[in-house]
Amino acid sequence: MAVLHHYPFCPHSRFIRLSLAEMGIQSATAEERPWERDESFLRLNPSGTTPVLCDDEIAVPGANVIAEYLDETRGPGLNGRRLLPPDPATRVEVRRLVEWFNGKFFEEVTSYLLEEKILKRFRRGASPDASAIRAARSNMRYHLRYIGYLAGTRNWLAGDRLTYADLAAAAHLSCADYLGDVPWDEDETARDWYARVKSRPAFRPILVDRIPGMAPAAHYADLDF
Amino acid sequence: MAVLHHYPFCPHSRFIRLSLAEMGIQSATAEERPWERDESFLRLNPSGTTPVLCDDEIAVPGANVIAEYLDETRGPGLNGRRLLPPDPATRVEVRRLVEWFNGKFFEEVTSYLLEEKILKRFRRGASPDASAIRAARSNMRYHLRYIGYLAGTRNWLAGDRLTYADLAAAAHLSCADYLGDVPWDEDETARDWYARVKSRPAFRPILVDRIPGMAPAAHYADLDF
Repeated sequence: MAVLHHYPFCPHSRFIRLSLAEMGIQSATAEERPWERDESFLRLNPSGTTPVLCDDEIAVPGANVIAEYLDETRGPGLNGRRLLPPDPATRVEVRRLVEWFNGKFFEEVTSYLLEEKILKRFRRGASPDASAIRAARSNMRYHLRYIGYLAGTRNWLAGDRLTYADLAAAAHLSCADYLGDVPWDEDETARDWYARVKSRPAFRPILVDRIPGMAPAAHYADLDF
Repeated sequence: MAVLHHYPFCPHSRFIRLSLAEMGIQSATAEERPWERDESFLRLNPSGTTPVLCDDEIAVPGANVIAEYLDETRGPGLNGRRLLPPDPATRVEVRRLVEWFNGKFFEEVTSYLLEEKILKRFRRGASPDASAIRAARSNMRYHLRYIGYLAGTRNWLAGDRLTYADLAAAAHLSCADYLGDVPWDEDETARDWYARVKSRPAFRPILVDRIPGMAPAAHYADLDF
């Protein structure tokens, strides 16, 4: 069985957890703390980041590489439920948006929130940088409008069907939402789209994740928020 | 004919120029200055970054998305010269290294050099940050050792054949090399590998690129450096 090495509040790991569940792939999980730079984990991924999927004796490192690998090895059997649909123009749009959320949104929003609010709890003497959190919240607002714009012109973010683009966006938003940092009242279309993704069975394990000593925002697991 | 929108000293653009040439794909180029945030360019790529490949009325934005698109639409016809070989484990390794260079190496080395030494020349009153340049040079040294390690254990960076991994690494190194920021004497194996990539016909257009008012390092276009 495939084993996903992940950290529960790593948005890239959540993207792959959602993707595996949507594709119906049975897998086990192994929790990593990538900041501890454990030698055995660095052998799986020299860049030392989560997630890594071990499948058939291949260690597949990094969310985007795993998504491509899963589509190539399992995608064709999924037919209409394929998360990277076969049409070339749709594949471009799905990949563009996956890069947008796993790259740009991460750099501008989730990396700050994760570092300042969660990871610094594990480092003695480190305290959150308020200006970094303010920057993340400010950036969040234009990203939320962009999600609202996409969801308002299409059924799902990249087109007619649920794809990797929705799962990448929802994975990052779910981390920020745990921390209470998504201003849902600013964009109803984005909220309605997120409610649809959040109510899928694949999302359930994400909604029961907890950071010890840090409760989620009140509406975090609420499907009707 | 496909049109590549690029900036000559954008390493991600150089990766795609090299890939198009190695695949024997005829294309035209259009030079962009992404920092000017031109409206018509933003319509091609909302994230406002180079490169973008316009092909058959599809705008394909971002180096990794273009590489996947080119492999899917042209790769199978290339047989043994395919830059993303068909074997699943090799595809994982090529993609891992492409992400390493286009992501990690860019964040730790080329983004600093590009910003401080080239892009700030276009902004009135901006002066290079010496500490950022020092950080880039320090990070370069461990990346160069990693390239030497890979080239010393394999024929090319990802295995037996030239792949996207070599082109991504060489694209980033070529930008740093123009600026004289690659300490080639520190790793002979890395230098020998780069000499092999640099002497390929696909590399010639890269070696004649010039920044107005800023000459390249003396050995930049020298195949026997």
